[in-house]
Amino acid sequence: MADHPVLRYLSPGAWSLIEPLISQRAKGLLTSLVEFLENDVLPSEKLFHAQIPSHPPEARWASIPPVMERLKHRAKGLGLWNLWLSGGDFQGMAGGEGGGLTNLEYAVMAEIMGHSAILAPQATNCSAPDTGNMEVLARYGTPQQKERYLIPLLKGDIRSSFSMTEYGVASSDATNLRNTTALPDDSGNLSVKGHKWWITGAGDPRNVIHIVLAVTDPKNPSPHKRHSLVLVDPRAKGVKIVRPLTVFGYDDAPEGHCEVIYDGVKIDVENGVVGGTAGLGKGFEIIQARLGPGRLHHCMRTIGIANRALDILLQRVSDPNRKTFGKYLKEHGTVVADIAHSRAEIDQARLLVLAAARRVDVAGAKGAMQDIGMAKFTVPSMALKVVDRAMQVHGAEGLSEDTPLAYYYGSLRTLKYADGPDEVHIQQVGKNELKRAEKLKERTEMIKQKSDSLLKEAGKLKAKL
Amino acid sequence: MADHPVLRYLSPGAWSLIEPLISQRAKGLLTSLVEFLENDVLPSEKLFHAQIPSHPPEARWASIPPVMERLKHRAKGLGLWNLWLSGGDFQGMAGGEGGGLTNLEYAVMAEIMGHSAILAPQATNCSAPDTGNMEVLARYGTPQQKERYLIPLLKGDIRSSFSMTEYGVASSDATNLRNTTALPDDSGNLSVKGHKWWITGAGDPRNVIHIVLAVTDPKNPSPHKRHSLVLVDPRAKGVKIVRPLTVFGYDDAPEGHCEVIYDGVKIDVENGVVGGTAGLGKGFEIIQARLGPGRLHHCMRTIGIANRALDILLQRVSDPNRKTFGKYLKEHGTVVADIAHSRAEIDQARLLVLAAARRVDVAGAKGAMQDIGMAKFTVPSMALKVVDRAMQVHGAEGLSEDTPLAYYYGSLRTLKYADGPDEVHIQQVGKNELKRAEKLKERTEMIKQKSDSLLKEAGKLKAKL
Amino acid sequence: MADHPVLRYLSPGAWSLIEPLISQRAKGLLTSLVEFLENDVLPSEKLFHAQIPSHPPEARWASIPPVMERLKHRAKGLGLWNLWLSGGDFQGMAGGEGGGLTNLEYAVMAEIMGHSAILAPQATNCSAPDTGNMEVLARYGTPQQKERYLIPLLKGDIRSSFSMTEYGVASSDATNLRNTTALPDDSGNLSVKGHKWWITGAGDPRNVIHIVLAVTDPKNPSPHKRHSLVLVDPRAKGVKIVRPLTVFGYDDAPEGHCEVIYDGVKIDVENGVVGGTAGLGKGFEIIQARLGPGRLHHCMRTIGIANRALDILLQRVSDPNRKTFGKYLKEHGTVVADIAHSRAEIDQARLLVLAAARRVDVAGAKGAMQDIGMAKFTVPSMALKVVDRAMQVHGAEGLSEDTPLAYYYGSLRTLKYADGPDEVHIQQVGKNELKRAEKLKERTEMIKQKSDSLLKEAGKLKAKL
Amino acid sequence: MADHPVLRYLSPGAWSLIEPLISQRAKGLLTSLVEFLENDVLPSEKLFHAQIPSHPPEARWASIPPVMERLKHRAKGLGLWNLWLSGGDFQGMAGGEGGGLTNLEYAVMAEIMGHSAILAPQATNCSAPDTGNMEVLARYGTPQQKERYLIPLLKGDIRSSFSMTEYGVASSDATNLRNTTALPDDSGNLSVKGHKWWITGAGDPRNVIHIVLAVTDPKNPSPHKRHSLVLVDPRAKGVKIVRPLTVFGYDDAPEGHCEVIYDGVKIDVENGVVGGTAGLGKGFEIIQARLGPGRLHHCMRTIGIANRALDILLQRVSDPNRKTFGKYLKEHGTVVADIAHSRAEIDQARLLVLAAARRVDVAGAKGAMQDIGMAKFTVPSMALKVVDRAMQVHGAEGLSEDTPLAYYYGSLRTLKYADGPDEVHIQQVGKNELKRAEKLKERTEMIKQKSDSLLKEAGKLKAKL
Repeated sequence: MADHPVLRYLSPGAWSLIEPLISQRAKGLLTSLVEFLENDVLPSEKLFHAQIPSHPPEARWASIPPVMERLKHRAKGLGLWNLWLSGGDFQGMAGGEGGGLTNLEYAVMAEIMGHSAILAPQATNCSAPDTGNMEVLARYGTPQQKERYLIPLLKGDIRSSFSMTEYGVASSDATNLRNTTALPDDSGNLSVKGHKWWITGAGDPRNVIHIVLAVTDPKNPSPHKRHSLVLVDPRAKGVKIVRPLTVFGYDDAPEGHCEVIYDGVKIDVENGVVGGTAGLGKGFEIIQARLGPGRLHHCMRTIGIANRALDILLQRVSDPNRKTFGKYLKEHGTVVADIAHSRAEIDQARLLVLAAARRVDVAGAKGAMQDIGMAKFTVPSMALKVVDRAMQVHGAEGLSEDTPLAYYYGSLRTLKYADGPDEVHIQQVGKNELKRAEKLKERTEMIKQKSDSLLKEAGKLKAKL
Repeated sequence: MADHPVLRYLSPGAWSLIEPLISQRAKGLLTSLVEFLENDVLPSEKLFHAQIPSHPPEARWASIPPVMERLKHRAKGLGLWNLWLSGGDFQGMAGGEGGGLTNLEYAVMAEIMGHSAILAPQATNCSAPDTGNMEVLARYGTPQQKERYLIPLLKGDIRSSFSMTEYGVASSDATNLRNTTALPDDSGNLSVKGHKWWITGAGDPRNVIHIVLAVTDPKNPSPHKRHSLVLVDPRAKGVKIVRPLTVFGYDDAPEGHCEVIYDGVKIDVENGVVGGTAGLGKGFEIIQARLGPGRLHHCMRTIGIANRALDILLQRVSDPNRKTFGKYLKEHGTVVADIAHSRAEIDQARLLVLAAARRVDVAGAKGAMQDIGMAKFTVPSMALKVVDRAMQVHGAEGLSEDTPLAYYYGSLRTLKYADGPDEVHIQQVGKNELKRAEKLKERTEMIKQKSDSLLKEAGKLKAKL
Repeated sequence: MADHPVLRYLSPGAWSLIEPLISQRAKGLLTSLVEFLENDVLPSEKLFHAQIPSHPPEARWASIPPVMERLKHRAKGLGLWNLWLSGGDFQGMAGGEGGGLTNLEYAVMAEIMGHSAILAPQATNCSAPDTGNMEVLARYGTPQQKERYLIPLLKGDIRSSFSMTEYGVASSDATNLRNTTALPDDSGNLSVKGHKWWITGAGDPRNVIHIVLAVTDPKNPSPHKRHSLVLVDPRAKGVKIVRPLTVFGYDDAPEGHCEVIYDGVKIDVENGVVGGTAGLGKGFEIIQARLGPGRLHHCMRTIGIANRALDILLQRVSDPNRKTFGKYLKEHGTVVADIAHSRAEIDQARLLVLAAARRVDVAGAKGAMQDIGMAKFTVPSMALKVVDRAMQVHGAEGLSEDTPLAYYYGSLRTLKYADGPDEVHIQQVGKNELKRAEKLKERTEMIKQKSDSLLKEAGKLKAKL
Repeated sequence: MADHPVLRYLSPGAWSLIEPLISQRAKGLLTSLVEFLENDVLPSEKLFHAQIPSHPPEARWASIPPVMERLKHRAKGLGLWNLWLSGGDFQGMAGGEGGGLTNLEYAVMAEIMGHSAILAPQATNCSAPDTGNMEVLARYGTPQQKERYLIPLLKGDIRSSFSMTEYGVASSDATNLRNTTALPDDSGNLSVKGHKWWITGAGDPRNVIHIVLAVTDPKNPSPHKRHSLVLVDPRAKGVKIVRPLTVFGYDDAPEGHCEVIYDGVKIDVENGVVGGTAGLGKGFEIIQARLGPGRLHHCMRTIGIANRALDILLQRVSDPNRKTFGKYLKEHGTVVADIAHSRAEIDQARLLVLAAARRVDVAGAKGAMQDIGMAKFTVPSMALKVVDRAMQVHGAEGLSEDTPLAYYYGSLRTLKYADGPDEVHIQQVGKNELKRAEKLKERTEMIKQKSDSLLKEAGKLKAKL
């Protein structure tokens, strides 16, 4: 039997381990995805970037490269659409036909998409923050909200933002987010006021909805029940897109990461609060549910980026025009060692992500918290190392626009904060692990008692290693 | 359904991923093994060490702690015997009834054994170098050799050594091993002459056989066909056990790692060469086949050692008597971070080993070479880091004989050379990975052509990231 | 006695060690420099960047921020001009009055300048590549070349580029640089043809001279005598500035790092070759002499950048508005540990640079090769780590244009290639160190003989540790 | 002028930097010390170890290798005695004639001694814990205590221990040390009761005095005034040397690190408390003063150990008998890189120690706290890395008794706890550094105001990087 084309991307060890858990349908989709990547997506990358004007600044945000619509059309035709859809919440919904894959199956797909991290997720309607926003709307939205926002999102007709991080606030502790409010005004409506930033996708001309975390019940005794998610149309009065922020000099046009001021935007509770009246005070509950799988999706794609960086490295060091001191770059022992370490580090991180995805399938996102947490703080750091090595073998060219490496580096660097900084996840995983200590002490005590009685029986009063 | 007791040792993510591939029989054995570990093996550790005399030196090598025989008896009764036996080669052989597990199943067992790395493998007849030696004899031995050595080894009645590393020779390059010879003498027999060291198990009073790599055909044009494996009884005339070597001050009595001189030991070809006449010149072929799975077994156990070190760490930092500056050790952020990193590193390395084991099941040892190689150079370094962190939270006590940690450190440190130094495996994995470069270049060229034609079609002559 | 203001930047340990070697004059200049930095340079940073137009693209390269001329004027008035001038070569030359400092003294100055790495070096006429170019012209230029280029450079009236790296060539091995030529044409002049890139400063509107490494004697049997340095006016016919390259997403306007094509630029030997006819074939000799101190200057400034990043970090983690989970950031143990490690790493790297600078004073650049080499591969990696930690405590803001950190990161990252990639320096230092082995073996042999005779005398035939 | 022989050990950069601060007398002593090391100490190492019986266990602690007395005699004759003596406290005292060196000068000497870390310090009467104990007695002892203990220690006739760490107590927080008491009994004397361990030198047959930290005033409201240092003769009634502890598997006979029980040892206040009645309650004050320079001495010697490890590595990889895969070990790029990194890491750490020593000369131990702290947590980790690399190139031999490397590793590993674990020093240095934050904020605010007024003046309302 021929090897599955996914083996051009995955290590055989990982594939051998998971292959029995991948359905025939998923294997078929995976084949299509690999072909779509190689035949359509990767060849479109240069054109995509060429279709974004370099100036004047405002032109960068005015339109979407036409090649993207072509790719979306093609992906739909191949059934490679909304692959992230986990099923349940979307059944019977117009546009909700894709998906149905397990998290493990989707993990492999997302890694493949990561090889063209800017184009492939969007081309298949699998890109953040839309996926998380669709989940929020599917689970918590009112029928009207679903009709108005979820259906067009599922179809890929509009885009959306998730507006959480506050300007000037240490947002990694979510209880610090208290400066954005949605409080009743004289008219009985809510008035949304706040200053946010790092709002991904807020520059996109197709964006018609921001899901904004805002305080609606400031006096609630529980700090976790004061917030709601409210829906703000970025074209509404009072919304100001201050500027696109840069990451290492890149503006990520036309989507962007923007600073946004909501200066008294009017909404009504029924349409403007996710879930309507029933959704009031549920802000924290919803974002908690939203973040778990989202973090994992980032990790999956990141594995793909790291792998692409290694592929680029391998080709560069094998270039016969790049000999130094009479040797191919690939003949230098330190280069070979870098390759081996990169391979092993990617493979380990991938397996961690696959195990976490499988754990979500078996025990739900909550039961997989520890596994997701480990992946969250492990994968971006690993990928940064691999990309850095790939840059190094390119000389200064690796830092320029002539390879995608420096852009990847900047982009991956943000993942050490996105959805919570590494430090928070590290402390959580560590504390969680510490919960094992009490059981271990009991077991140790039991073993010690048996050991002591064996020693006594044998007439040995003391012993050493 | 109750959780499997293996979850006291494995992370849920890893177990979720492999559980569908573990047979009911293996799950039962695994339950028995965990119970055997906790009820019998761990409580016997102190007595085992107490039963090894501290002096005079020669007494350390004169006998085996009686508690070991008790453990072996118990393990046999529980069916926990020769679990490593992969099946085929041993079918129908007296003593060859155990095993039949897949490599993946055995990997989990071996990790559990690693929690008592000195006792558990021997108690279950799964310890190096005997397992590898049994494989050699089963596959390549003559019927007489099997009768004489393999059957007693399978029964756990005798022990054996594998005598490869030469004194004063850079043995990591096996072609350097040319100073030990087994050449015809006047009588027509072979005379074994050589100076070896790091011969594990050569101090054991039960040891009755050394499998020695020796040159038998020095003039063979192929440097890989000059060697054979010969069988030397350590009690034979001409064998001198020079000294037990120490590793960080530990002598590993009563097994030891010894310097051995073979000074004209007489053997005859039919009985003394593995495989008899047919085995002449097959030394390199056999050791190649021997080393793959052996390396993986070391890795599996090493995961268990690292896990035990983390268990010890967790208990120490939770000790209420150990507060410093008003805090439990576990309340210091750097300690929690060390725990989280240890957890993530162990889990990743374990998954790498499990994937490699699965790969052996699917594609054979040869097909799993890259996966085994990665595990080989990744796992010991990972475990050393975890053990070092565990030592650090113990203060100087962690370096003493009052915890097993310093001993583990020394023992794991040898694994960065055993069966080939890390450097060799790193270079091999790197070079192997480089073989992908040519296919990648072809794909890149194909993508570039498509990309160029898309750009041309769109009228874009240049593009940038 | 009051502390010297330099102690606001240097650790007391380092200052104690070098202070006896710093002259009174240098101490006075150092005081002026610190005050100039704090009162003039740092407050001008924002204005400098504000005075560079963001678009249209061509405007970014059309003019120099007026504030720079103001700073240069002020620096001259304070005697803080051409501090790098080592004396000898420039004595009696118009504009050559500054300097006269030892390399050690200048090292401290350069570190202080590093705190405003874009403005301070240029404001004091101490910036690369001009300093190295001035050295080349002073030592090797003809009187006419000095008059035309050196004097205006010393006065800060013009700027220059050093054009070495070739497009598409592995330039870290300088013998690969053979595609740029300056060969006689029909008219008896030389015609410069080549494709270079990473030509720093080539975007600057004040730039009137490129010093270009070109092959002038392609058939010379020695590959190190084939090149000369030729002088090309960027406004001459045949020079094409293809594009400014970006580093990460930064273009470093208005100086830039450019791709440049020399397409048959005419020069005559006497004026166009550095040193005239006598300079033919001396290209490699000159660049060798040029690179040593230049590398060290980069290191010195880099220490200053790392120090500034730590200063920024310290202020951020002490911000009372940035508490997370009820704690200041500075109360988290892992943050404190990052600070301590950063402090220790900066201090060590600084001492390495100071020792190398002192070594140049005592033994010349050649005698300091090993010390310079170590600094070269140590300092940028150290600084990248410190900057990365500073970014991490800022959250995503640290990657944006609201702090200088991400820009620093990109800029420092180039130093792992500039003037030779780390790998080349690491191999050179290692090989140089290996030269000690033979002497060590002799000493070991001598000690062994004495040891053996002591053992024999004492009747001990063998001994162990 | 001929190079100073110290350049066989120090890098030229470091020597160039400090040489102007080294007196002629110190240079002369340094020459003698290098010669003593090479001609006497290093050749005696094997004999020293051969003269320690390997069994029975008690014999290891019964005598001192005679070669040590020969070395001490020789060192005295060369004036290489008590070099650590800083002057003041010992002037005019019998045996106090040595020393008078600056801390910087002594730092270089101590590094040279580190090349034979077991023999050289003892041979020159510069070994811990005696040096620190002598300082305590000189500064705080009564005349009788000086007569009885200090003079013989200065002469090298007796040895001593410092008894601080308590069994079962987290001693890194010194306020936890409250279980050892010296309280009045019925007779009006003090009765010393406590359980200590890691008492270095307590196994030495020449040891006649333990300086013991004990609670004498348990009710004192200040936890830092409850302790005194008391003098206990290890041969007194009530002292029990429980066992020598091992570090990894080494017992460091005949000095050892012992577990000791003081079970009601009688002392009187005037003779038995350091300083007599006046010394009551001064325990913490004295140990604080004692530890600073002691920590630095450890660091100095550690640099020497690391350097010796590198010397051993260099010789091994240059051994023509050790070729692998057709290459010298030294021809492998990864080996060369390890050498270069080791060289650079040793040099940086050395410079840190030298700067700290110089700082003590200029500002006293208290003024050098930050510098000493950095050296304390930097140097042992650095040395462990270098020793580990040296072990790696030796294969398993590097872990055995055939090289000193594994012993060094174990010994250096203890330095990450000795005199306070790394973690404590890291937190202290970090917190100390954080004290700079307030001044930095003021400066930043001042710069911001100037910057704002420049921007306003220039009509630029906003600016960016």
